[in-house]
Amino acid sequence: MAHVVGVVGGGQLARMMIGPAVELGVDIRVLAEAEGAPAQLAATMVGDYRDEKTVREFASTVTVLTFDHEHVPQPVLASLESDGVAVRPGAYALGFAQDKIAMRRRMAELGLPVPAWAVVSDEAQLDRFISEHGGRAVVKLPVGGYDGHGVRFVSQASEVADWLNPDALLGFPQGLLAEEAVEFTRELSQLSARSPSGEFAAWTLAESVQRGGICVEVVAPAPHADKALADEAYRIAESIASGVGVVGVLAVELFETRDGSLLINELAMRPHNTGHWTMDGSVTGQFEQHLRAVLDLPLGDTALTGAAAVMVNVLGGPRPGDVDEALAKALSVDAAAKVHWYGKEWRKGRKVGHVTVVAGARGGEAVSDSIGVVMDARERARTVARALGAE
Amino acid sequence: MAHVVGVVGGGQLARMMIGPAVELGVDIRVLAEAEGAPAQLAATMVGDYRDEKTVREFASTVTVLTFDHEHVPQPVLASLESDGVAVRPGAYALGFAQDKIAMRRRMAELGLPVPAWAVVSDEAQLDRFISEHGGRAVVKLPVGGYDGHGVRFVSQASEVADWLNPDALLGFPQGLLAEEAVEFTRELSQLSARSPSGEFAAWTLAESVQRGGICVEVVAPAPHADKALADEAYRIAESIASGVGVVGVLAVELFETRDGSLLINELAMRPHNTGHWTMDGSVTGQFEQHLRAVLDLPLGDTALTGAAAVMVNVLGGPRPGDVDEALAKALSVDAAAKVHWYGKEWRKGRKVGHVTVVAGARGGEAVSDSIGVVMDARERARTVARALGAE
Repeated sequence: MAHVVGVVGGGQLARMMIGPAVELGVDIRVLAEAEGAPAQLAATMVGDYRDEKTVREFASTVTVLTFDHEHVPQPVLASLESDGVAVRPGAYALGFAQDKIAMRRRMAELGLPVPAWAVVSDEAQLDRFISEHGGRAVVKLPVGGYDGHGVRFVSQASEVADWLNPDALLGFPQGLLAEEAVEFTRELSQLSARSPSGEFAAWTLAESVQRGGICVEVVAPAPHADKALADEAYRIAESIASGVGVVGVLAVELFETRDGSLLINELAMRPHNTGHWTMDGSVTGQFEQHLRAVLDLPLGDTALTGAAAVMVNVLGGPRPGDVDEALAKALSVDAAAKVHWYGKEWRKGRKVGHVTVVAGARGGEAVSDSIGVVMDARERARTVARALGAE
Repeated sequence: MAHVVGVVGGGQLARMMIGPAVELGVDIRVLAEAEGAPAQLAATMVGDYRDEKTVREFASTVTVLTFDHEHVPQPVLASLESDGVAVRPGAYALGFAQDKIAMRRRMAELGLPVPAWAVVSDEAQLDRFISEHGGRAVVKLPVGGYDGHGVRFVSQASEVADWLNPDALLGFPQGLLAEEAVEFTRELSQLSARSPSGEFAAWTLAESVQRGGICVEVVAPAPHADKALADEAYRIAESIASGVGVVGVLAVELFETRDGSLLINELAMRPHNTGHWTMDGSVTGQFEQHLRAVLDLPLGDTALTGAAAVMVNVLGGPRPGDVDEALAKALSVDAAAKVHWYGKEWRKGRKVGHVTVVAGARGGEAVSDSIGVVMDARERARTVARALGAE
């Protein structure tokens, strides 16, 4: 049987795997949540990814199972693995992307740099943590959060009283995660991929700009990142990938602090928004690399195709009925910008597409020496995104 | 209704439109000849493209109709246009891609350089043409030829006696096309695109290497092509595109003669094998550009993403059952080569995929000054193609 990759989840990440799958001759099938999902074109089944029977039925039609998101429950993953399904990344690795407390614990075991953290189950514990960490903390629901949901900055425990009441805690029997509110100078993202046979490849370190917990822009390479910083980010990503046995793309979101050190913020074990720039800005894009990795094919070259790439998300976007006109306008603004559209309907703040501008010569001077290239590319990408109706 | 592009024909050209359609958010639907066609993923109908009813039914589900090939009969195209279907390219333009005699006549009317040619209906006419053109001629069936089929080099008319007998000529009531056997030094391809509103964009001039009438390799930019030659190729393509009202991608295959002049060989009004390098080697690939053009969206930048790109076809390829292994081997040979696979089963000499290597810096020195870059890229692409089982 030729390679058949099954993707659980029909969102834009599954959608963006379609092009590379077609190019590599890989049969791609999607288990979508509903009709009309972004990855509809490759959807062979519609159903609930939390339902063991549904996922097993879908898995029986593919040779390798991977994911658009990290929300498939552990018991379902465990059941698939005991059936002998090639689940990539596997249940063990995914556990650390699903459970932020397990992640913090494992990162600490691996000796990797993380913000100070503690598990808290009541207001007294949290208030103690806050007072020991400068009067502020970040409180996170250990599972289920996304795009800023499930995260709160607090200066006293009563601000998350609704999360810490006994009924709410029934959903989080371990307790909640409290972390120091890191005073970072910027956020970085180290994207990489690992295959089952242990091959590892990383892209250049990128800078991501977040607004309200949502990624809005990414610049690669991260401006003014010296070799020591880039090497440290690489080392962290490689340690995590091998330390938890990741298969596929791994995004490590990092804080850079005032003294130039790095702290691990979040992990994602799938193609990630902070890696969308690789589709146009790298010889091998993250969606192609993810497919190569989960199929245990050799990984592709991660070199940049220009001096720098800037990706700007389109949040919100045009109202239904205005999409064609917005696309025409956006393409007329900049003939070299790459527009990616997810086929999602408008909703306030929703990620509906992104724009990438690649600038400067491949193999050219380091971007830290030519910040003008980045500034120009960023302005161009923002202009196209605005034409697409970005908020 | 949002953009829905319908592609008649389910071959690899339709297949390679899928990725760009997904990225631009364009709904793509394919009328395939049979189940399991290369563009199966987007196939919404299976049927005969020669059947008016079938094509009309398919056309009723899309906003713009375009093509994987040029074989839809003129009466079917005319019927669609009289229904008000947006057929792109239109019946008039396609006529010149379908009928080589009409093409030669129109090129001559436009004052463009073509080999000496004549219409012949019997052996005496052909022998006269041969004796007037150095004792050799190329005889072509005016319609239906492809990949070297329907073309013969002859030194006397009796060599095509089977084509010139009255029964055989019933299929070619105009007669056959006789052309001088051009003593060319190499073959070139000028790829371009035109939109209904008249926007025109061309890629750099490329050199194509043919073997037995089949394209085997393409190098872009064409080595040692000076500005005068490139300008002349551009002028020819632009004249044809506007002169016959092409919409979509136009490939003009050219002969370069010993004195450095150009003669038009063949036309194709669709993405073309000699333009596959643009998928990886240009900011806008030919499949994306074709979609933009047929939808009358602004055309994309055609700049190269490196100093040079070399595309090598995979002809034949691995036997069924060996495809996965061949892919793994090919990807292990060169991490930066881009492998494209068409999902076709093995058959001797069949085009089953292609490999592109992009080399050197974007915006770098002209390739004519760095022929080593091309030689190296060509060797790399050939090596990967061989690993894929190319004959």
